[in-house]
Amino acid sequence: MPATVAASIARAFIADVFAAAGFPAADAARIGELMTEADLTGADAHGIFRLPHYIRRFKAGAVNARPNIKVNQTAPATALVDGDNGMGHLVMSRAAETAISLAREAGIAWVGATHSNHASTAGIYAEMPVQHGMIGLYGAVANANHMAAWGGTDLLLGTNPLGIGVPSGEGPLVLDMATTVVSYGTVKKYALEGRAMPEGWMVNTTTGAPLTDPKRSSEGMLLPIGGYKGAGLAIMLGLLAGVLNGAAFGKDVIDFNADDTSPTNTGHFICAIDIKRFIPLDAFKAEVDRHMNDLHASHRLPGFDAIRLPGERRRAGRAQRLRDGIPLPDALKAQLDKLASEMGVRKIGER
Amino acid sequence: MPATVAASIARAFIADVFAAAGFPAADAARIGELMTEADLTGADAHGIFRLPHYIRRFKAGAVNARPNIKVNQTAPATALVDGDNGMGHLVMSRAAETAISLAREAGIAWVGATHSNHASTAGIYAEMPVQHGMIGLYGAVANANHMAAWGGTDLLLGTNPLGIGVPSGEGPLVLDMATTVVSYGTVKKYALEGRAMPEGWMVNTTTGAPLTDPKRSSEGMLLPIGGYKGAGLAIMLGLLAGVLNGAAFGKDVIDFNADDTSPTNTGHFICAIDIKRFIPLDAFKAEVDRHMNDLHASHRLPGFDAIRLPGERRRAGRAQRLRDGIPLPDALKAQLDKLASEMGVRKIGER
Repeated sequence: MPATVAASIARAFIADVFAAAGFPAADAARIGELMTEADLTGADAHGIFRLPHYIRRFKAGAVNARPNIKVNQTAPATALVDGDNGMGHLVMSRAAETAISLAREAGIAWVGATHSNHASTAGIYAEMPVQHGMIGLYGAVANANHMAAWGGTDLLLGTNPLGIGVPSGEGPLVLDMATTVVSYGTVKKYALEGRAMPEGWMVNTTTGAPLTDPKRSSEGMLLPIGGYKGAGLAIMLGLLAGVLNGAAFGKDVIDFNADDTSPTNTGHFICAIDIKRFIPLDAFKAEVDRHMNDLHASHRLPGFDAIRLPGERRRAGRAQRLRDGIPLPDALKAQLDKLASEMGVRKIGER
Repeated sequence: MPATVAASIARAFIADVFAAAGFPAADAARIGELMTEADLTGADAHGIFRLPHYIRRFKAGAVNARPNIKVNQTAPATALVDGDNGMGHLVMSRAAETAISLAREAGIAWVGATHSNHASTAGIYAEMPVQHGMIGLYGAVANANHMAAWGGTDLLLGTNPLGIGVPSGEGPLVLDMATTVVSYGTVKKYALEGRAMPEGWMVNTTTGAPLTDPKRSSEGMLLPIGGYKGAGLAIMLGLLAGVLNGAAFGKDVIDFNADDTSPTNTGHFICAIDIKRFIPLDAFKAEVDRHMNDLHASHRLPGFDAIRLPGERRRAGRAQRLRDGIPLPDALKAQLDKLASEMGVRKIGER
């Protein structure tokens, strides 16, 4: 059993670290809340795990602690948010709030974000409109390119994620998917655990042969879901989240793992659709529940011990981690203790 | 070399057949235009190939020749179109026109369609806003269920397609993808040609084993792209295109290949995003061109003779078919000749 940290302590620790770094207290608290939400919903590579990296890039001058985030409403149902190179969590929170507010009047709203940064997971933002009886759509340009166009080997595409959040009587259904078969974080996890990867995740960029040794991932590239379809979807999400907003895509993407000093000009979009403009919210939820029950009651394919529907693991996992804490592997705990010392804040174990 | 039919003749033939069936002349012409557009853009299973099937279902009472299509604008940027069980092509044309018109004022618009029918391909509708300097998003509930929830075997999900259309300096980029690895039409094509399917397209629903004999496709189910991701995307598209609009999804879907008499209550959505509310259209197109050029110039993966980008085959194929005609296999030509006799219109060869 790895050690765990309570969500409330994770939130406070992250907030203290950002406040110590010079972020306004309210912003630091909001970042702590959203990063911890990534951990609670099972996105282990997008929560507290990112904290040392975020702080390292901030200290190297790549991120603005006191951004002047500007919301420019450009039409009754559209806005463009200039994040002024602030943390993506803050920029995307504002973008999502704006989308929800505009959609209340217009029925739908689409808000783009530019000059932003990494913002944790797609699911967090896709879920925000759901809390207001709306459907949420989220897309982003990933902060590193580990994929090529279909048939190519130049790493010009990211895992560009798509998030879709829909309300149901049982709680939010959230689809949060990369356009690659697996994320690069999963590859890194396999490398740490010394496990071979199955064929179909990566290929060697020179030979095209399956690459199964995760320690040699730098020689390969991630494969898209569905071949040309996933690569095409990654391109389209990149145009919608990046190019449409004047944000980075393709060759202009900064690899935020390798480069600590350059602003990433990350782009995202969030769309909120007000359900009641189409069907009463209660009727919608009841229908979603009926269909999910049908899907659940399906006969099982041999070799499967469960039917997997969007958002279920996320909901169950969130409840379990709220109760039992968020797993904190020893190596991560050591990194966070070191960070705490550097920043002059209390370590997690002292809270 | 199979025989071909000129696009203008295909359009006129289809229009004559629908007019002879009792459809208003303008509607018949519009259906002919859109079905032929499917053929021109390479969707062989969604164009003139469907004509005998469409007419068979119409004659059996499943489709309304003289629908009262109602556009109900429900907010500044949303509308719900009730197709009154008309042909999907007519319903979706109205829906797309409505979305474009509303998006001009609101910056974006989302239009749902209900009580509709099969409407050819996703790409046709996703491309319509592109002609107006907008981005188009289209989704639909497919008219047959050939997929299960991830881990299940009950056929409750369709190939629910997604279309995304984006302008560029070179013409529209259009992504038109099923959420399954292949469409059921491709399986039927392999059966006709007596070819074995590769593993990964279908599995046997009882054993879970790969199903490679397309003649035994009724014993199996299509696999989603990216495993649980594609299945999740099919569910989400189904909720957005079906449930949100009060249209069929899951158990309620009518298999329009097997059932000639029941209205399908097909649901779709179309979203139009006005680019100039985010970035000047010329600047957007120039940036898209720059990125597409980068992707094109990519080094080639061994075994690939081209880089495949969304919309390129479609554009090249459309130009070629406009010039050389649409392929018309003998078996299809015979069906169309028979239909011409039944409907009392001139055969394709007599035009």
